[in-house]
Amino acid sequence: MNRIADIRITPIALKDPPLLNASGVHEPYTLRSIIEIESDSGHVGLAETYGDDDTLLRLQAVAPQLRGLGTHDLAALTDAVLAHGKGRQAGVAAHVVDGAPGTHPARALDKVFAGFETGLADLNARAAGLPLADWLGGRRMQQVPYSAYLFYKFGRHHGTPYGPEDAGDPWGEVLDAAAVVRLAQDMVGQYGFGSLKLKAGVFAPDLEADALLALHDAFPKHPLRIDPNGNWSLDTALKVAERVGSALEYYEDPVPTLADMAELNHRTGLMLATNMVVCDRSEFAANVGLGTPVRTILSDHHFWPGFRATRELAAHCDTFGLKLSMHSNSHAGISLMAMTHLAASTPGLAYACDTHYPWQSEDVIAGGRVPFVDGAVAITDAPGLGVTLDPEALARLHEQYLRCGIRSRNDTREMQKHQPGFVKRKPRF
Amino acid sequence: MNRIADIRITPIALKDPPLLNASGVHEPYTLRSIIEIESDSGHVGLAETYGDDDTLLRLQAVAPQLRGLGTHDLAALTDAVLAHGKGRQAGVAAHVVDGAPGTHPARALDKVFAGFETGLADLNARAAGLPLADWLGGRRMQQVPYSAYLFYKFGRHHGTPYGPEDAGDPWGEVLDAAAVVRLAQDMVGQYGFGSLKLKAGVFAPDLEADALLALHDAFPKHPLRIDPNGNWSLDTALKVAERVGSALEYYEDPVPTLADMAELNHRTGLMLATNMVVCDRSEFAANVGLGTPVRTILSDHHFWPGFRATRELAAHCDTFGLKLSMHSNSHAGISLMAMTHLAASTPGLAYACDTHYPWQSEDVIAGGRVPFVDGAVAITDAPGLGVTLDPEALARLHEQYLRCGIRSRNDTREMQKHQPGFVKRKPRF
Repeated sequence: MNRIADIRITPIALKDPPLLNASGVHEPYTLRSIIEIESDSGHVGLAETYGDDDTLLRLQAVAPQLRGLGTHDLAALTDAVLAHGKGRQAGVAAHVVDGAPGTHPARALDKVFAGFETGLADLNARAAGLPLADWLGGRRMQQVPYSAYLFYKFGRHHGTPYGPEDAGDPWGEVLDAAAVVRLAQDMVGQYGFGSLKLKAGVFAPDLEADALLALHDAFPKHPLRIDPNGNWSLDTALKVAERVGSALEYYEDPVPTLADMAELNHRTGLMLATNMVVCDRSEFAANVGLGTPVRTILSDHHFWPGFRATRELAAHCDTFGLKLSMHSNSHAGISLMAMTHLAASTPGLAYACDTHYPWQSEDVIAGGRVPFVDGAVAITDAPGLGVTLDPEALARLHEQYLRCGIRSRNDTREMQKHQPGFVKRKPRF
Repeated sequence: MNRIADIRITPIALKDPPLLNASGVHEPYTLRSIIEIESDSGHVGLAETYGDDDTLLRLQAVAPQLRGLGTHDLAALTDAVLAHGKGRQAGVAAHVVDGAPGTHPARALDKVFAGFETGLADLNARAAGLPLADWLGGRRMQQVPYSAYLFYKFGRHHGTPYGPEDAGDPWGEVLDAAAVVRLAQDMVGQYGFGSLKLKAGVFAPDLEADALLALHDAFPKHPLRIDPNGNWSLDTALKVAERVGSALEYYEDPVPTLADMAELNHRTGLMLATNMVVCDRSEFAANVGLGTPVRTILSDHHFWPGFRATRELAAHCDTFGLKLSMHSNSHAGISLMAMTHLAASTPGLAYACDTHYPWQSEDVIAGGRVPFVDGAVAITDAPGLGVTLDPEALARLHEQYLRCGIRSRNDTREMQKHQPGFVKRKPRF
């Protein structure tokens, strides 16, 4: 039996453009934890997850408890994570700042479990000599399609976080419909994406609807999604639906609660999607209890915790006639390949997956960044995730983490540097 | 990558006592298919499933299509089974005789998938050097508790199927409450079972309620279940519930439809269990749609197909607040160990599992029959299922299959040998 001999957790910081969302604006760096799990047989499994202090400190606290466990023993991993949670329960709420989408404290333990579960899966797949998708049960796709993830954005970060000579990111300022179309043309040109998603909830909803309709004109054959991160009232979401509903592949988290989503579905019949109001089993049951007003669930193995749980989610969706898509957060190549292998082996994944990968310019993997062909990432026959760490890149990005000064993501605080009066409100519009 | 090099499917017949149920009486032999899957690396995975012609012929038709597949490739296995089903769809309904519980044609392809999926899991666990429970995700139990499965029974089969000198099985005739208690005492004495299940639906319901109450008197601390296989009307089930409801751990399939189960739950509030009306994902959704009147699901990896599907079922049960138990059919030691490893690694299994194993006296495994201690079967540290085939026993029981003349289970036809006027009716009472 392979047993866990050592676990290394390295926080890194990746440069991130000033992307706008409902909470504010992305900070100059996004934090990720890189997890290496080494077995007593010398195999190393890789995982990548959130790098904010809350996740990182929990990963570091649990890791020593895992030494000596069998690499297949998810029961013991569950127990170790729950034991950690029990000890820390009191401290969690105070520790976590709800400063960005995806930092809800209830997900904290799920994130820790998933970080280790996915690393162990990679390790076991490598030990078996199998690509991860094959180890997970076989490929349904050889290439996994992704969608272009379009953000409004500032041209530059506040201050000069990368030094006075820095020229800013290559994507430029995106603050209106014309710029959104230009961005989509750039991104589709470079990556070949066959579908488009607009991150909304930033500007007046009518302006965002204008942008979506402009995309529809410029890309009449591309499926379109819009995602205001729950930043619209029901009335606003209804008004936007009247303008753009017929152009949408799905309407993602327009309103902040499941009850509002149910009412919106009742009144529009539109396909609603979420990664915010159906994020765990109890929320899944609540959605079913309301007659499944939300009919597309965005999985995310980083917090719907792990590869096994994602397969169980896919089975749940099949049982209740729901569709499955995939969410992303800012990430490097290990998460991208984990998403790709998982998507390739998950039955019923009905849509191109989200990815932030084009927004990142740095990575920790050897051999350069993961290539996209026609908007898709291919599975190779290499074992596990099919990628390995570049130790120099890891060290450099860890140094960047140590220097960057960010320890918990807070898009609201960053926005206040640009607009001192900015406050977080949901729904804002 | 390990690939499938060869698959051997051997039908066997095991002597089976004349156990009574809603459909009639068990025939002198029960049929099982023993599946050996050999990989190009020389590992052999074992599985056991139904041996009736419908299952056997399908297994034999699909097996050649699986040569060369990766041993983890459940996606390709799914495709091969579905391709077989597509070709044979028209012939299925005519081929299957609904002569016994568990022979519904809709389960035919699921049984084929499960036979191979479980054999591949054993193979992969052996290749990884892990006990199957560990390979499936880790043990939640070291010993898996089973319940005594009490049947009414004749003292002897009709005719002399085992030859004129045969003295009959050691359990004797069980046709009334006193004999049921005596049987329970014998079986608990030999196996140490800590809970009791009475197979009912055979005699007048009041007599069966008498038997259950007699068990309750004789074993006041043993949880009790009664299972008439849907052979009671709603009125009958309500009347029996008045007499025995408070003594039941759960009330298993008293009535034949989900609608009747819903009404029964509504009027009694009793914990209802099933392996008949919630047997697949669509029936699971129907039960949820009715507000989960059935709150305990009996899994069975032979037809809720396979180990992965059982884990997904457990996740479904967790999501909707249902409990999980485990069904059995007449079986040998390979199925018993598959059930044991699966149960040990399945979160939320809340009850002692069913098993028919004490009713069988013959087996195909090396080293003698699987031991029970205090009503439980232990997991060992041996790889995979922890048991191997005895080639001589396999050959002998295959010879018995060739001679026995039974090719499809039909408890009704067998009963007509004892009682020529017997007809199948459901609900009978």
